[in-house]
Amino acid sequence: MKNLVAGVDIDRVLTSYALVDEFGKIYAKGSFPTQDSKNFRDYVARLKDEIVALANNLDTPHTITAVGIGAPNSNYYTGEIENAVNLAWKGRLPLAQELSSIFGNKPVVVTNDANAAAIGEMIYGGAKGMKDFIVITLGTGLGSGIVVGGNLLYGHDGYAGEAGHITVVRNGRECGCGRKGCLECYASSKGLKNTALELLSGTDAPSKLRKIPMEKLSSKDIAKAAKSGDAIAKKSFELTGEILGEALANLVAVSSPQAIFLCGGVANTGELILTPTRRAMEKNILPLWKGKVKLTISSLEYENAPILGAAALAIKEIEKRNVVVARRKIF
Amino acid sequence: MKNLVAGVDIDRVLTSYALVDEFGKIYAKGSFPTQDSKNFRDYVARLKDEIVALANNLDTPHTITAVGIGAPNSNYYTGEIENAVNLAWKGRLPLAQELSSIFGNKPVVVTNDANAAAIGEMIYGGAKGMKDFIVITLGTGLGSGIVVGGNLLYGHDGYAGEAGHITVVRNGRECGCGRKGCLECYASSKGLKNTALELLSGTDAPSKLRKIPMEKLSSKDIAKAAKSGDAIAKKSFELTGEILGEALANLVAVSSPQAIFLCGGVANTGELILTPTRRAMEKNILPLWKGKVKLTISSLEYENAPILGAAALAIKEIEKRNVVVARRKIF
Repeated sequence: MKNLVAGVDIDRVLTSYALVDEFGKIYAKGSFPTQDSKNFRDYVARLKDEIVALANNLDTPHTITAVGIGAPNSNYYTGEIENAVNLAWKGRLPLAQELSSIFGNKPVVVTNDANAAAIGEMIYGGAKGMKDFIVITLGTGLGSGIVVGGNLLYGHDGYAGEAGHITVVRNGRECGCGRKGCLECYASSKGLKNTALELLSGTDAPSKLRKIPMEKLSSKDIAKAAKSGDAIAKKSFELTGEILGEALANLVAVSSPQAIFLCGGVANTGELILTPTRRAMEKNILPLWKGKVKLTISSLEYENAPILGAAALAIKEIEKRNVVVARRKIF
Repeated sequence: MKNLVAGVDIDRVLTSYALVDEFGKIYAKGSFPTQDSKNFRDYVARLKDEIVALANNLDTPHTITAVGIGAPNSNYYTGEIENAVNLAWKGRLPLAQELSSIFGNKPVVVTNDANAAAIGEMIYGGAKGMKDFIVITLGTGLGSGIVVGGNLLYGHDGYAGEAGHITVVRNGRECGCGRKGCLECYASSKGLKNTALELLSGTDAPSKLRKIPMEKLSSKDIAKAAKSGDAIAKKSFELTGEILGEALANLVAVSSPQAIFLCGGVANTGELILTPTRRAMEKNILPLWKGKVKLTISSLEYENAPILGAAALAIKEIEKRNVVVARRKIF
């Protein structure tokens, strides 16, 4: 009998799920549109049914020992999704409790996608064996999962690791959070795009990017142009990396990680973002850490990283509960 | 038989030590000039002799169970003082190992003063029962001790918590670390003084501070002038608090603490620094934390805080070792 966990990644459009073992082998996976269900309870029931159907079709004899979920604005401590602006259902959604109650009281744990990515890196990826590291997700926004002493930094309320909302430019770009100059306004696909637009607006120099309708301009377009030698596109990556690297140097001063992993769409451009980020990080880092903190792209396969992160969350939780039970026996 | 720990605070001038119980009661204390000893080995021998002499004079029957030491540039993981610029002995000094070997192999643990202050706050002060909080020491420089999940954030190499070297002003004031614009260039007694000088240089407005020789100007002088209504002195505290509060808002985004405690000389000025810091922190904090993170002055008595922090470090270490031993029994 094989022990498997279910890893679930919930985003605005799609809910993806997979059955995964402790080595990161995906036995089966599926997905369905997140916002098809009328209400939250129906959604949770469907999620359970989908996982069960996937499991029933599996040839390998197995038990699902736990479910890990990466979801926007979700809280590890409460098990809830709390006021996620990009989901249709409002208020506090008791996701972990609800799913566990209709799924044989299996352990169900939730956290946001950046935290899940960090645990994925620790259990399956480049951070195996590391106890102190940071994962930065460079998607539409910037998320961070900070691991200290082998555990995710959740903080007092479960919301630690909001490095995307460190202020990096006083009175800078307007952020979705209502404040100005947040890191994610600069280091993210949206930030990269706005940096390109800013550069384009300040010069008449020719650029392939000018042919693309502004609202369609993506970090992929900018990467493609940069690779073909477009000066504005290259400069956009350099400025993005500069701000990101400076911010990472500050994060190192706070948590002294062994390594920092970049993942998500912008990270998928590889050296284009990595080189200027590393340069700026090394330039701004305290002397005692110069050349010592590894900065690299996540080793998890881009497409499967979110569900692997969620699966890893479930595995980490089982380990944690085993330790607690073991400690209770002797105290 | 009473269990006591020895708490030792080493600074450039004085080595202070005390015998302390688990409630923070100081049974006896003493001090000697740090740099009297010819070499490091003699220094450690004297430290041991001083603690033993203090213990021998104690009426209460007791055992010294462990020694905790707060020292500049010291590393919890290695037990060493590493290249402390303000001590006469150079290189890596194996303080914990050396003292333990001549002191009956008692557990000896070291960390820097800000980390010790954080553990002091947790065991004896306002952070009792808290698992996630930050202590900021505002002395000549700025130190930070960050506690997450009940444990001090040491990071990969033992040097985490260098919040004083977060860059807050690009190309700002020159820092002792060789970089520019570090938080401690603004939020510390030195920073406060330089802000006052900057303000004085930009105006002819009268100020009591002008009567004090520049090299003698202290944060105490500025506090005294501010309390008597001196506009420049008041403004100096406001600007210091503004930068500090902004930095704290960023730290909250990273580690989501329940509370932040200020200690050290500048913190000893109370509301003068607390009010503008709190205002700026609340203004810059992410909406989800507005009004939720307690910002306060350390509740430990200013004079004894360093040795209490060091004693608390020893107590925390004994607790930690007991847990490890207990876990080993069952795994």
